[in-house]
Amino acid sequence: MTKLAVVAFGGNALLRAGQRGTIDEQEANVTETCTHVARLIEKGYNLVIGHGNGPQVGNILLQNQAGFEVHGVPEMPLDVCGAYSQGLIGYIIEQQLRNVLEAMNLDRDILTLVTQVLVDKNDPAFQNPTKPIGPYYTQEVADQKAAASGDVFKEDPKGKGWRKVVASPVPKVIGNRKSIEKLAREGAIVVCVGGGGIPVFYPEPKKLQGIDAVIDKDLASSLLATQINADEFYILTDVPKVYINFRKPDEKALNVVTIAEAKQYLAEGHFTEGSMAPKVRAAIYFVENGGKECIITDAGELGKDNAGTRIVK
Amino acid sequence: MTKLAVVAFGGNALLRAGQRGTIDEQEANVTETCTHVARLIEKGYNLVIGHGNGPQVGNILLQNQAGFEVHGVPEMPLDVCGAYSQGLIGYIIEQQLRNVLEAMNLDRDILTLVTQVLVDKNDPAFQNPTKPIGPYYTQEVADQKAAASGDVFKEDPKGKGWRKVVASPVPKVIGNRKSIEKLAREGAIVVCVGGGGIPVFYPEPKKLQGIDAVIDKDLASSLLATQINADEFYILTDVPKVYINFRKPDEKALNVVTIAEAKQYLAEGHFTEGSMAPKVRAAIYFVENGGKECIITDAGELGKDNAGTRIVK
Repeated sequence: MTKLAVVAFGGNALLRAGQRGTIDEQEANVTETCTHVARLIEKGYNLVIGHGNGPQVGNILLQNQAGFEVHGVPEMPLDVCGAYSQGLIGYIIEQQLRNVLEAMNLDRDILTLVTQVLVDKNDPAFQNPTKPIGPYYTQEVADQKAAASGDVFKEDPKGKGWRKVVASPVPKVIGNRKSIEKLAREGAIVVCVGGGGIPVFYPEPKKLQGIDAVIDKDLASSLLATQINADEFYILTDVPKVYINFRKPDEKALNVVTIAEAKQYLAEGHFTEGSMAPKVRAAIYFVENGGKECIITDAGELGKDNAGTRIVK
Repeated sequence: MTKLAVVAFGGNALLRAGQRGTIDEQEANVTETCTHVARLIEKGYNLVIGHGNGPQVGNILLQNQAGFEVHGVPEMPLDVCGAYSQGLIGYIIEQQLRNVLEAMNLDRDILTLVTQVLVDKNDPAFQNPTKPIGPYYTQEVADQKAAASGDVFKEDPKGKGWRKVVASPVPKVIGNRKSIEKLAREGAIVVCVGGGGIPVFYPEPKKLQGIDAVIDKDLASSLLATQINADEFYILTDVPKVYINFRKPDEKALNVVTIAEAKQYLAEGHFTEGSMAPKVRAAIYFVENGGKECIITDAGELGKDNAGTRIVK
């Protein structure tokens, strides 16, 4: 039976350090990542692709703020900016992957879905928003905006100013998960859950609504992999393996890790928050909830024997 | 057998005269249109929804220009701005339609697809670009930009300044048309081909690429309806029927029109360019290429007996 895999593109699949985010940069980066992902497709995998949107939605928020200042264009809320970014990034991935596959004479449909992800308004994350988004403001302007909107602003630790912060709640249900699974099992490659999905909730029964929040994209892809019963879950990053004692004299690359070991390494502080730690947590979530194995690796390693770090039961 | 229909949302489904385009305005307008569209779903139709993006992509272009001016955020080309708008509008339609259907206890999947549409680089439209897009510039700035980019700028007839103009080529192939048909025939409501689709072409074999152009959204929806073998094609607008001698003493609403009659009315200049004329042409295209009938009407008429103007063979 054909294996179904979810691949979560890392930030560097789209944008590299020092790049400003032109369309040419993003297309070239995506093409490179797709060249590697194509090896899984060549092996016959059914595939669903998730991706982040941090720098892109950051730019979109700046465009929104400037569009209002300069032209009076109404600013869109964060959930809608996330929808912009799903269109943007999904289009780039679909087009570049299509070109890569055509060059390899691989004929597969590629579909890009705008994806909403349900969160719980009672998630404790909403009591303590921590994710900074959008432009930097002076304390005075931030105070005015906070008073007018109820938004929360916090000072940047590096002193660059004050920024709005939002919650990062746990994703609960991936919108259209059944259709995503069906399409993928029928052979289509589905690009979805971009930026961790557009966070939505039910303010009242039968009424879905967007909410100011960001969902961790690895956790959302992990939930997706679980909810579509994927066999394997790949988390792409910019290192070939996960390390303990990273960048210390006794640094050690991990080949196979059980979830018990992974939890212990997490507790011992081996993995950086905001970087490797959420990826390892996403891997644990997948394997604890029925997944066979999660592979954390660099795209360049995909399809090779013993690629990356395998997190298993 | 269940009927398959394509419904092309009109501009007023999203934005009304005098509105600036806030998210609240757009959500309220879409909800109203979806309430009407739901009557077709209640009748058991399989449905694909297309939509325009004129005012939205206009705002996105202004946001892009201002984002570069104020923050140095790289400007995205028109095809990518179209992708932004598909995310934005698709998200709004999917969410509001879902809420409308849930309130009616109608259980249907709704999927929003980012859609590329193939055009021909040799389309004569590229020799004479006519569609103004984006910000107004002084003649001096427009000349500088034209020299730097090769873009074409034309003076606004009302004297508001100079704007970039792009081609409006004929759409040739709707991306993912087979998957769209399959999903819709299996009961999912598919939102796609937003803004007429993202125009793409092959600069070389096996290499798909975006191109600076806008595709007429009614024509793209008509091509979609043809290529997915839809039974009926609805073009929503802000009048209940098509009229000849519109707003003259001998104005007459049309109930049933053959394509021969429609062509004659077009030739006689009964329909305004940029408004009813492209809708009638889109209707003719559908019926001439195998469609049973096209209905041009106001959303409020949907599902009523003798609703709108029916264009038939």
